[in-house]
Amino acid sequence: MDTHVTDAPAASSSATAEETPWLSTREQQFWRAHLEVSKLLEYQLSRELQPHNLAINDYEILVVLSEQPERRMRMTDLATATLQSKSRLSHQITRMESAGLVLRQECPGDRRGLFAHLTDEGWNTLQRVAPDHVRSVRSHFIDRFSPDQLDALYEALAPVAEHLRTLRGRA
Amino acid sequence: MDTHVTDAPAASSSATAEETPWLSTREQQFWRAHLEVSKLLEYQLSRELQPHNLAINDYEILVVLSEQPERRMRMTDLATATLQSKSRLSHQITRMESAGLVLRQECPGDRRGLFAHLTDEGWNTLQRVAPDHVRSVRSHFIDRFSPDQLDALYEALAPVAEHLRTLRGRA
Repeated sequence: MDTHVTDAPAASSSATAEETPWLSTREQQFWRAHLEVSKLLEYQLSRELQPHNLAINDYEILVVLSEQPERRMRMTDLATATLQSKSRLSHQITRMESAGLVLRQECPGDRRGLFAHLTDEGWNTLQRVAPDHVRSVRSHFIDRFSPDQLDALYEALAPVAEHLRTLRGRA
Repeated sequence: MDTHVTDAPAASSSATAEETPWLSTREQQFWRAHLEVSKLLEYQLSRELQPHNLAINDYEILVVLSEQPERRMRMTDLATATLQSKSRLSHQITRMESAGLVLRQECPGDRRGLFAHLTDEGWNTLQRVAPDHVRSVRSHFIDRFSPDQLDALYEALAPVAEHLRTLRGRA
């Protein structure tokens, strides 16, 4: 899978291109492996959620709402938590509302916007689907690393996650 | 960022849930770090492509086409290479065609479908944007690992990528 040119494109010969810190072969291999795993893992987990009639983004919404007090969250905060635009989230919540998983409601006494509530059906769906989902995550990802690799990966990735959260204004 | 419940949801007490191999704390931390890095890195790289008027998926299309003989590819193969549905790719190519970056054409003598061609403008855009993109990739990801970490990460991820490619039918 070819994804992002990070080694020199063919025929690059401008002054700018010559100063560019192109990736080494090993860096390039690692970068492509990261992109493949990210993309293919999301694809595979999505596939395995399909029998439950859930998209992977739906599952994420169920999880986030289930962890909130009263199982509800202001729509703008939910957009931030799931890194979605408000308009895209709005479409998604509309779909999930039709499926009976969530309910959009104004909060009495709070004029700052709509809340998304997890319904009992949404809660029960999460309880039912989570065991299958964790098996998928184990079988395609977590269980493929040794305990030492897992520690090393976590130590390497955690500071990068923090850097990116800071940039995103969510640190 | 809360993403995927992989530890036991509150109030899980069914027989099925009790047998579920929930993630340990460390596994859970690692899983969330992976999801955060995947999602936030894509977000950040997308942001840094915006001044070039390119979405990250557009950039990927430019790269893939630039690496093909005659800088063109059958639409169905391009969908496979970029892991997109044909309909979503079709919308994207329509947008990129309006921007002058690609051209959709039937191939004389080949009735098996349309090809997407990289235009000269698309090629020049890629040459112009690639140096900035590689700097983004370095600054937010690659340069944040030591050489030893980079080796360890690659060795851990490469077999997972291969497993997932095999599942995807693209090994």
